[in-house]
Amino acid sequence: MMKHFDHEAMMNADSFYRRNLINCLSGYKSLNLIGTQNREGKTNLAPFSQVFHVGANPPMVGILFRPHSVQRDTLENILETKSFTLNHVTPDFCQAAHWTSARWEDSEFERTGIDSTYLDGFFAPFVAESPLKVACELIETHTLKVNDTVLLIGSIEHIYVNEKGLRADGSLDLNALETVTVSGLDEYHRGVRIARYGYAKPDKEVEILD
Amino acid sequence: MMKHFDHEAMMNADSFYRRNLINCLSGYKSLNLIGTQNREGKTNLAPFSQVFHVGANPPMVGILFRPHSVQRDTLENILETKSFTLNHVTPDFCQAAHWTSARWEDSEFERTGIDSTYLDGFFAPFVAESPLKVACELIETHTLKVNDTVLLIGSIEHIYVNEKGLRADGSLDLNALETVTVSGLDEYHRGVRIARYGYAKPDKEVEILD
Repeated sequence: MMKHFDHEAMMNADSFYRRNLINCLSGYKSLNLIGTQNREGKTNLAPFSQVFHVGANPPMVGILFRPHSVQRDTLENILETKSFTLNHVTPDFCQAAHWTSARWEDSEFERTGIDSTYLDGFFAPFVAESPLKVACELIETHTLKVNDTVLLIGSIEHIYVNEKGLRADGSLDLNALETVTVSGLDEYHRGVRIARYGYAKPDKEVEILD
Repeated sequence: MMKHFDHEAMMNADSFYRRNLINCLSGYKSLNLIGTQNREGKTNLAPFSQVFHVGANPPMVGILFRPHSVQRDTLENILETKSFTLNHVTPDFCQAAHWTSARWEDSEFERTGIDSTYLDGFFAPFVAESPLKVACELIETHTLKVNDTVLLIGSIEHIYVNEKGLRADGSLDLNALETVTVSGLDEYHRGVRIARYGYAKPDKEVEILD
């Protein structure tokens, strides 16, 4: 049986119910801990599910920041220092990663048990435990008219990946890296491969690569 | 062992290698088939991994369209008619969903075996097989300076969800819906829940909900 919500039913729903429902609609989301520090050297770490691919040549990534979200420290640090890191989460520290979303006064690195590390002189801190770490520099910002959501575009300056997840063709085996994905506001999952498919052509059945 | 790529190593890599690597960096991505039709009634269906949450009050969603991508029909149809649908993919029609990315001359609905359906007089077609269908109307567009990527914002007008995946608190059980997630350009996965966690507070360990 299919349940139907029209616009009026969504707007009349309890605000928690609506928030849960609408946050789940896009499907599984990427999960990254974003590491930053301010000019005084105070570090910050926060979970984000709105990091996405923008371009490979040159390599760029986008992040969407909701207005009035608990992660404004991250946005302010990036605008101030232009520097941030993306770090994949594994099941080993998934619960601690969720804990970084609390309104800590101190650095999340000091309080949640997640370790920071600094690599190749890059300003922002990385997550030591992460099997994939990416260093980015801010290059462009947009503000959405509809609700003051902020879109940041970063250039990708460094990538550090555990070799167990790096394939010969450059693609990453996220199952092997044990990368975690998130749905809605609070639910975490591991991925299990169905298949990898060949380049799709009309009138020729899709090839299964592995 | 960690493998390090600096900016120069990325730019010197083979373009296929770089494209694979950079497309994988964000982690698991949402997968939606976007259904549209043009003013003449020709339908189109294409897979997108760049759909994300923008707001719950009012309900809104964003989509990022890469420049010169194979999915320009989708973008043109949305700009022309303001109307599109998002449809989750399950393992049953994952291979057919990948096939919609080929450069078909006819409608992907006619050639890949995926069935269209029309609901409540909404202009754009839905995927009949999909356990979660969302109807959206275009309300805002942005073009990124860095590479002409286009960001569309849509208002959410209708949601149709299989009741087996709708929880009492409004959140969706994507494992139960069998929603598929994608990594990189061509790899598809199912999700397996690790845990759902309670609202995070400082100095209080995170509660496991289920």
